[in-house]
Amino acid sequence: MASIAEELAEKHKEISIGEFFERNKHILGFDSLTKALVTAVKEGVDNSLDACEEAGILPDITVEVRSIGEQEYSVSVEDNGPGIPKRKVANVFAKLLYGSRFHDIRQSRGQQGIGVSAVVMYGQLSTGKPTLVRSKVMEKDYANEFRITLDTKNNKPDILSQEVVLWEGKAHGTRFETCIEGLLRSGEHSVFEYLKNTAIVNPHTQITYVSDDETVVFKRATDQLPPKTKSVKPHIEGIELGTFVKMAKSTERRRLSSFLVNEFSRISYRTVKDICKEAGIGERTNPSEMDIQDCKKLLKATARVKIMAPETDCLSPIGSMLIKKGLKNVLKGYHPEFYAPPITREPCVYSGNPFQVEVGLVFGGDLPSEGPVRVLRYANRVPLLYKKSACATTTAIKNIDWRIYGLEQRGGKGMPSGPAIILVHVASTRVPFTSEAKDSIADIPEVVEEIEKALRECARNLRTHLNKGKTREKISEKFMVVKDILPMIAEKSAAIVGKEPPSLEKVMTKIMGVVYVENTFVKKDKIWESTININNYTPRKRNIVVYMEKPYPDTELIFSDPEPVFNGDHLRWELSSMDPSASRTICFRYNGDLGKEDLSGIDVYVEGVSETELIGADPLPADWDIALAEIEGGE
Amino acid sequence: MASIAEELAEKHKEISIGEFFERNKHILGFDSLTKALVTAVKEGVDNSLDACEEAGILPDITVEVRSIGEQEYSVSVEDNGPGIPKRKVANVFAKLLYGSRFHDIRQSRGQQGIGVSAVVMYGQLSTGKPTLVRSKVMEKDYANEFRITLDTKNNKPDILSQEVVLWEGKAHGTRFETCIEGLLRSGEHSVFEYLKNTAIVNPHTQITYVSDDETVVFKRATDQLPPKTKSVKPHIEGIELGTFVKMAKSTERRRLSSFLVNEFSRISYRTVKDICKEAGIGERTNPSEMDIQDCKKLLKATARVKIMAPETDCLSPIGSMLIKKGLKNVLKGYHPEFYAPPITREPCVYSGNPFQVEVGLVFGGDLPSEGPVRVLRYANRVPLLYKKSACATTTAIKNIDWRIYGLEQRGGKGMPSGPAIILVHVASTRVPFTSEAKDSIADIPEVVEEIEKALRECARNLRTHLNKGKTREKISEKFMVVKDILPMIAEKSAAIVGKEPPSLEKVMTKIMGVVYVENTFVKKDKIWESTININNYTPRKRNIVVYMEKPYPDTELIFSDPEPVFNGDHLRWELSSMDPSASRTICFRYNGDLGKEDLSGIDVYVEGVSETELIGADPLPADWDIALAEIEGGE
Repeated sequence: MASIAEELAEKHKEISIGEFFERNKHILGFDSLTKALVTAVKEGVDNSLDACEEAGILPDITVEVRSIGEQEYSVSVEDNGPGIPKRKVANVFAKLLYGSRFHDIRQSRGQQGIGVSAVVMYGQLSTGKPTLVRSKVMEKDYANEFRITLDTKNNKPDILSQEVVLWEGKAHGTRFETCIEGLLRSGEHSVFEYLKNTAIVNPHTQITYVSDDETVVFKRATDQLPPKTKSVKPHIEGIELGTFVKMAKSTERRRLSSFLVNEFSRISYRTVKDICKEAGIGERTNPSEMDIQDCKKLLKATARVKIMAPETDCLSPIGSMLIKKGLKNVLKGYHPEFYAPPITREPCVYSGNPFQVEVGLVFGGDLPSEGPVRVLRYANRVPLLYKKSACATTTAIKNIDWRIYGLEQRGGKGMPSGPAIILVHVASTRVPFTSEAKDSIADIPEVVEEIEKALRECARNLRTHLNKGKTREKISEKFMVVKDILPMIAEKSAAIVGKEPPSLEKVMTKIMGVVYVENTFVKKDKIWESTININNYTPRKRNIVVYMEKPYPDTELIFSDPEPVFNGDHLRWELSSMDPSASRTICFRYNGDLGKEDLSGIDVYVEGVSETELIGADPLPADWDIALAEIEGGE
Repeated sequence: MASIAEELAEKHKEISIGEFFERNKHILGFDSLTKALVTAVKEGVDNSLDACEEAGILPDITVEVRSIGEQEYSVSVEDNGPGIPKRKVANVFAKLLYGSRFHDIRQSRGQQGIGVSAVVMYGQLSTGKPTLVRSKVMEKDYANEFRITLDTKNNKPDILSQEVVLWEGKAHGTRFETCIEGLLRSGEHSVFEYLKNTAIVNPHTQITYVSDDETVVFKRATDQLPPKTKSVKPHIEGIELGTFVKMAKSTERRRLSSFLVNEFSRISYRTVKDICKEAGIGERTNPSEMDIQDCKKLLKATARVKIMAPETDCLSPIGSMLIKKGLKNVLKGYHPEFYAPPITREPCVYSGNPFQVEVGLVFGGDLPSEGPVRVLRYANRVPLLYKKSACATTTAIKNIDWRIYGLEQRGGKGMPSGPAIILVHVASTRVPFTSEAKDSIADIPEVVEEIEKALRECARNLRTHLNKGKTREKISEKFMVVKDILPMIAEKSAAIVGKEPPSLEKVMTKIMGVVYVENTFVKKDKIWESTININNYTPRKRNIVVYMEKPYPDTELIFSDPEPVFNGDHLRWELSSMDPSASRTICFRYNGDLGKEDLSGIDVYVEGVSETELIGADPLPADWDIALAEIEGGE
């Protein structure tokens, strides 16, 4: 027996992190040939976006995927980021668990320090070839170029060659090129799809995608970088006891109060008082002298004291406008009946990590009604294409009984089906991915719960819409009848008594109680003229605002009375206060080739009137465009 | 700009593997309180089983889970394994990526060198408390006891105390006790369920489970250890080019032929000849002088040359008998209509790693017909309870159009529904888990394909059964009519002509062509008497074997004519050769309290007759019990 215990013990060895991942490359996202290509591109692009945003540079990224043999591709990603100083390049690209964002508490795409080094490792593993890296920082006239591999046994870079090169026309940036085994596919899980979805929620980015078959440019849509996320201190809510004990032991603060105020976010001296009272521990206690029981009491007390939600500036939500764009993009050719206003929840905390959930939903119209609803998933502005079923977003969707909100669902469980698309974004200083491949979000109870809440909030609007729809339909029918018949009656009656037909506005107002919008278009050559009539047939004064999308990228508004306010892609007319029975007219003209498009396909939105009182236009704020307007105005 | 590149570069730091997992504890299986407990127990038990099996010891494991505070539990796992020598204990329990099985190519439960150290880390993280480890090797009179934590920053153990203790009544073994935050639940995802399912496929193990509410002993069912798995050399099929290049560069062999024969499994000098010819590379080439192109050619050539499948002795499949037991266990109270014979596929290879798939299926009867089919998943004899939807087993099941095999499935996609339970086991020298938590198997194309093949094979038997069922039903109806009417006709005719009624066996044989089994039971006090009549109404000689399950654990067979053979839980009567029209009778008596049970609930199986020729009993080998009998006989 002795010999067996000893014999077995002799086999115990340290395992290199490099060898571990070399043998478990699927954990890093290299489980199939198709996915390997997507992962390689994704890790490169994520890094480039993070670097550009941190340096305040509008990202300009070129991704090239070229076939160089049977199931072998050369993948390169080039950016205009700040560049990497020579001494750091090799480690950034060929050392696992090496990175700049791991210790930072703020939202970023890369957080693990594994990504791009995993690509280098997979490249050499699958094709035996080294990776070529070139980087240039602004203050140098030249770039440094390396050929490197990852020495998996020691988890450090092997630099095969290193030289100084000129990089014509490039002020600064980084480029790498790796040869990997892979398979370039189109469809839902493709490089193209990943880049497209990235471009949608990162409109400050220009992405050029070059493959053997095509060159696609996802153009920059805005010159405004998203607000830079700020590093914050950890939030005390849900922090692990062990982490808290470690912090208390190692702090240089001598008093509990200053420890809590200075090393955690959102704790004031006032809050400390409450916490300490609740915990029965003195504020002047030396934190390093507290034992586990004290720490436990303190953490329990924080759960009972109201502590402010985490700062929002460590997070960068997508925002209503981009959620809408994200959904519109997949909607090409479809005309949904209802756009639920996107929901952006307040930031929350899991294990001390702030996170925030956003949800968007479109429903009905001519969306496919067969099969499960489509789900678009994002984490820290990165589209998630794989492992859908293992994702907290899917868990949350399945947890909800969608039947009460108007979607079909077998037995009130599982994926709902029907004509709907749901977008979910989880932003966090540390997204709890299920594995290093960052394919899906783990089922952390706090996270699942927040997603559920956001979904329910969104879904409630869907239900309201569906209910109101019925009411509205009835009112609309009634109005149309009255609107046609009343003038006829008036005319005939007037003819009989030999008088002028009376004004009907006041009568209509009494009978109907609705705001009626009429929208007409006339085409003259390339000029489109539109007239919008607004009649206030309600007994109340109305401050009405009318919105309309800019119809086409290359068209021009050449006349409008009254003058509209431009709001990005929208026109906005603020009408002066309208008394009961009053009416207004907006008249405007567009110049430009609309092709087969027709202005009647462009929706008119009206703010200031509730859904059931409005006929002939879509109401705000029940529609999400109000949120769009607010964001645009607020930024 | 320069300052930004430099500033950002300054933040680049090495990340400790300990800190990485501390912050990503969900990757290790600690994503929820319920799961944390299961993970802690699982990692401990997996280690104990591996250690015992390697040392050739019948495992005797005690798992204790005690509530010690609000959402806080003490978890301990004690085994009778070989013990760990003093100098290794701390590293085994408090160093991530440290283990004995990582470099071994053979099936074992732990392969990552992370498991139990992750439990220690999660314990200190969630409760701030160290882990208590005690271990004793046989040749010492005393045990060593440690209180340790994991220093995550340096990924090494912190030994808080260390002492020599007596361990009364323990010859050898290891025990650890960790305090963790958790939640003890019952149900599908519980500690109990994990242990029960572990016991089922590891019948050589005795597991005692102690919680505040219950003490359960899963008794050892056999004293036979599963065959010890052997370490093998890597298989060349699907090996990564990079790995091959590395091996070629570092080998001490001077000739390609001896390199291939000695460092890979299943390659003979004969095979080398074929490979080299196919690749156009000389057998005497020095492997370390080959370039990437040569290596690529060689690997391509191996794909075209037939190389033997990997050795099976590095793998330890569950086997038909245990698959059946596993399914029977979840079937308690149900009586399925059909047990598909379990499928054990030949070993295959992915990325050079041998693996083997087994599948079992039961169908129909009173199994719940609502909702999706139930799936039992195992990897290397370890039950997988979590992340079902992210598992290759689920992917494979969803890939199949089950409608053609007789199960319901919406649109021929997704999970099939209906009255069926499917068991899938993947055994491998390296199971490709999706993450370090070992919850589910990654969608490696080769693995998914093999699972699909096994499932289809199994499902084809289901289809055959369902088709035959229809034929059989018709024959059975016809037989019953003939059997009742023929004697009446014979009697009447005999009466008319004034003769004795003729023997009808030969006529029945001519008309029907079936073997008819009749089974009657009579109860006298606590004695049950059973008579089985077998009539060979077929035109062929038959060698018939009758099987019957032992009806109840505490009953006793007190008489049988003829004498049966005992085969574990089964009685087996081999009847002497039966001529056409011959009949036999088996008569036996049982003593014992059967409670509300009734012997008629116990199936009789008949071997030697095809399904469509048998009436009144279930046929073999169409049923899987034949496999059971073979295995039992063969071992």
